[in-house]
Amino acid sequence: MSDAFVRRREALRVQLRDRGLDALLLVDLLNIRYLTGFTGSNAALVVHASDDAHSIFCTDGRYLTQSEKQVPDLERVIDRNSAVFLAARAAKEKFRKTGYESHHVTVEALDGLADAAAGIDLVRAPGMVEKLRIVKDDIEIEALRMACAAADRALADLMEHGGLRPGLTEREVARDLENRMLENGAADKSFDTIVAAGANSAIPHHRPTDTVLQSGDFVKLDFGALVDGYHSDMTRTLVLGEPAEWQREIYDLVAASQAAGRAALKPGAGVKDIDAAARGVIEDADHGDDFLHGLGHGVGLQIHEAPSLAKTGEGTLSAGMAVTVEPGVYLAGRGGVRIEDTLVVREAGPELLTLTTKHLMVV
Amino acid sequence: MSDAFVRRREALRVQLRDRGLDALLLVDLLNIRYLTGFTGSNAALVVHASDDAHSIFCTDGRYLTQSEKQVPDLERVIDRNSAVFLAARAAKEKFRKTGYESHHVTVEALDGLADAAAGIDLVRAPGMVEKLRIVKDDIEIEALRMACAAADRALADLMEHGGLRPGLTEREVARDLENRMLENGAADKSFDTIVAAGANSAIPHHRPTDTVLQSGDFVKLDFGALVDGYHSDMTRTLVLGEPAEWQREIYDLVAASQAAGRAALKPGAGVKDIDAAARGVIEDADHGDDFLHGLGHGVGLQIHEAPSLAKTGEGTLSAGMAVTVEPGVYLAGRGGVRIEDTLVVREAGPELLTLTTKHLMVV
Repeated sequence: MSDAFVRRREALRVQLRDRGLDALLLVDLLNIRYLTGFTGSNAALVVHASDDAHSIFCTDGRYLTQSEKQVPDLERVIDRNSAVFLAARAAKEKFRKTGYESHHVTVEALDGLADAAAGIDLVRAPGMVEKLRIVKDDIEIEALRMACAAADRALADLMEHGGLRPGLTEREVARDLENRMLENGAADKSFDTIVAAGANSAIPHHRPTDTVLQSGDFVKLDFGALVDGYHSDMTRTLVLGEPAEWQREIYDLVAASQAAGRAALKPGAGVKDIDAAARGVIEDADHGDDFLHGLGHGVGLQIHEAPSLAKTGEGTLSAGMAVTVEPGVYLAGRGGVRIEDTLVVREAGPELLTLTTKHLMVV
Repeated sequence: MSDAFVRRREALRVQLRDRGLDALLLVDLLNIRYLTGFTGSNAALVVHASDDAHSIFCTDGRYLTQSEKQVPDLERVIDRNSAVFLAARAAKEKFRKTGYESHHVTVEALDGLADAAAGIDLVRAPGMVEKLRIVKDDIEIEALRMACAAADRALADLMEHGGLRPGLTEREVARDLENRMLENGAADKSFDTIVAAGANSAIPHHRPTDTVLQSGDFVKLDFGALVDGYHSDMTRTLVLGEPAEWQREIYDLVAASQAAGRAALKPGAGVKDIDAAARGVIEDADHGDDFLHGLGHGVGLQIHEAPSLAKTGEGTLSAGMAVTVEPGVYLAGRGGVRIEDTLVVREAGPELLTLTTKHLMVV
């Protein structure tokens, strides 16, 4: 595992050299976790452009033992004001041009860093690690795979044990599903579970209430598991009892749209074009106004990260990006359908990580 | 409820006028929630120094309906880039000197705000709302009271139903306790529950593992409930079976220290002195080196907020502050005790919000 961190830091170093930086001072905990494996709540990191012998990790006394285990291969120092401490250290070591994460450091916090770094150039360097994080390595994809599997198994368990039936409330179903994710290897849910029954399914980001599930309802479940810091994200919509004609129609429409979105996931494809491929199917059926949100987003150490698969998104896909594809059609007052998978972009076609069936489940 | 928001904005206006600001541009979601009641994930707010007729709230299209309900008394506008949109609007309205939350705005984000606010002075204004939030009003204290009650009831239920006994794992106990908080009115846990058995109880911020609870173990439970956005925080340490002599000794010591800390909570008292009052009891028993952290912290919309009751803390207490008092003694490899309450500072003596007994519970 530690090899992966070495490789990631090496990839960052290539960028540092390209930009003529001697070092980068990192303060974002997710970026630091990505580069070192450290999972505590206070840390800063200096990655030196030449090699790790000059890189330095800082955390506070609470994490002394933990940091010895998690960051064995870097110099470790202990100080509560980790970022300020490392800014001073960069100055002392004469890292003449040191970048800092200007997209994470606040205007006020910069004062402290600049004072500490007197004598060297502290320059803006936004987004350097995020640029690496957008393409996942094998270890990250394995964590995503496990997170998606925990969610798949949880839903299967829920259905097998009668956890989706008329008479239960949205809240009860959400809690049951979250517990089943924990029983199936999740460290936590990856975001607040959405369970939306009946007319509530037409609200894209409905939060579970005491609404009781009833026969004939659409039930929309949007949920995910957290494994090793990585987030899964899946939505399934099913029907309690026999689906009505209009339910089948919009389900089939969303399923076709989602399939078109998945099929469009190719290295080199524009993210806008992925959105358009799925959206076109819904627009052609005159439901364009009922698809209110973007098609998908990247997932990883954050539940929402780059790239954004949306009308306004920019850039193209690369192999190794992990994204969601989640079109929806929402008919206010009646009900809505969203179908969402987490997938990895591959040369040979997308790898599906969320494996629960997308056939209309009637329970 | 809406009256409370009006009052809070009025209190902020007093500060704005004192500082000669025409308006304040807010971007922090908790500060915006405090001032408006809005609970969505994207918002910005301009509070005008003269009155709310000139204040403006902005969120994105997902929250159109929600914001109409939650923020009925302010002008509402819809834009995805809420902060940039309101910076431009402040310029258009000629709010000549507009403060911004420089402790929340990143160096990169400031560029966008400054461009949008061309023509007016956009000046740093850190911490203005946090300064108000440090003293809780009655509505906030009621939310804290409900959050503490949910945690109290959850622990009582857990014990009544045999949820604390040899053979269970730390993870199982944590999950059970969290579910019981949800059953007792919590919207969520207020932080990741700590369940630490046996030698693990000597690790101040241990995370639950598959360690099995055994007879004779200390079991340390640090947990809290979230109600209406407010966080409770309580720690109890108990013994499975008959306590050994050393366990009684350190339990009694920590209990005495905690009582001393609570007794010292008075308006006007220095936060350092509260820490010293509790720490002194432990130092006098030659366990000063085994009390590794600060005595306590403010709680409210965040689980950790001002004031910090610690050696290095600054300032004095005021009536209406909500704080924790949580001394601990940790004997590496053997076990540790922490006892923590959430309390409100009052003229007539502190109001205890976490009501579970602090007598040594033997289960």
